[in-house]
Amino acid sequence: MSEQHIARAFDRDLEAVQSLVLRMGGLVEEAITNAAKALEEGDLELADSVRKGDKQIDRLEHEINEAAARLIALRAPVSADLRLVLAAMRLSAGLERVGDYAKNIAKRTSVLEGTQNVAGTGAALRRMCREVQLMLKDMLDSFVRRDAVLAEKVRQTDQDVDQMYTSLFREFLTFMMEDPRNITPCMHLHFIAKNIERIGDLITNMAEQVIYMVKGETPDTDRVKADLTTKPGADE
Amino acid sequence: MSEQHIARAFDRDLEAVQSLVLRMGGLVEEAITNAAKALEEGDLELADSVRKGDKQIDRLEHEINEAAARLIALRAPVSADLRLVLAAMRLSAGLERVGDYAKNIAKRTSVLEGTQNVAGTGAALRRMCREVQLMLKDMLDSFVRRDAVLAEKVRQTDQDVDQMYTSLFREFLTFMMEDPRNITPCMHLHFIAKNIERIGDLITNMAEQVIYMVKGETPDTDRVKADLTTKPGADE
Repeated sequence: MSEQHIARAFDRDLEAVQSLVLRMGGLVEEAITNAAKALEEGDLELADSVRKGDKQIDRLEHEINEAAARLIALRAPVSADLRLVLAAMRLSAGLERVGDYAKNIAKRTSVLEGTQNVAGTGAALRRMCREVQLMLKDMLDSFVRRDAVLAEKVRQTDQDVDQMYTSLFREFLTFMMEDPRNITPCMHLHFIAKNIERIGDLITNMAEQVIYMVKGETPDTDRVKADLTTKPGADE
Repeated sequence: MSEQHIARAFDRDLEAVQSLVLRMGGLVEEAITNAAKALEEGDLELADSVRKGDKQIDRLEHEINEAAARLIALRAPVSADLRLVLAAMRLSAGLERVGDYAKNIAKRTSVLEGTQNVAGTGAALRRMCREVQLMLKDMLDSFVRRDAVLAEKVRQTDQDVDQMYTSLFREFLTFMMEDPRNITPCMHLHFIAKNIERIGDLITNMAEQVIYMVKGETPDTDRVKADLTTKPGADE
């Protein structure tokens, strides 16, 4: 009876940690969407709300870490339970970084005001954002459902983001060479593209954490991973 | 007697985790130094050894996580001991990311071969690398010595790295506007500069983990933090 009671208390604590992660994930998803929207529409107010919202995301990371550490100290979980708690901590660290990238994207919205508009890039960046936002959503689902197959799918989707990034990188180079007035905006747009690509990488890492959590081992096949701009000749 | 015996076993485990972190930190320091050297001297062989060495760094992260999880499961540490184990895990995650950045820098060495040389930038990037490498060294020392004051110093040093980055960013813009042949190399050099700046940020995060580990609370003063290129008007 008493043991059952402890077990229930433990499950409750676990669930509390998990729902904090989901809440944090929801805020980060929103931050990505809004950062992309603000950028495309030049909406400085929305950009500002993304910047300010990051504080709340940071607070949640802190809260998750505290709750997880308390849970470990009080309940001494082992094997699968311990992996879940550790995964929650790692996910919160990853989400915090993704939140920072979204904030960085939002920051550049105001820098880009007053520079030359570079045709079509806003929509392309928004498509990239949409892609990583879907990855994030699937990753969070895979965490809740303990679904290693879905997590593996997330991991493989990152290739698409990498490819989108590589093709944008080349576009930026072309724009810059065509017109020197494009140089400054393209440097910033390129940053943004790279930030989104990094968000994809971070979500991929988190998906790998989920796989580890479910299976107790890290994925054995290498992920196809290519920022093709670092390949010699990729810029030609 | 038996309790003392357990205590000693626990200390031994803790020390083992800590020395793994130091070993990993040493490899990452070396990776940064060698990536910078390879870049400045166009040494493709050295760049390649940095890329290959990253596998070893990744393996150590895995080993640290396994050892830390085992330690938590077997010995159920609390308060300061638990904070130390969790700090070791977070440091290893941070070090792994720094290792990735060093690898990325090394990758660009071969891309830059065959592009226009941009005067003086190699030396400037090397100075930035030197700075973050010293930050890393101090951060690892602060971890071993449980020295929150030194960790706080590391945290503040990051400003210098940010300033070096901002001034390089402006230089790159100028070079690109002066001569379109500089555009491609400067895009890559700029990437490298941003990677080093991010390494500084990561080490700062790790220093904050050390402060938390020592004091049981996160630093209360905000770090002066500025990538000034995101300030409106910073590029003029």
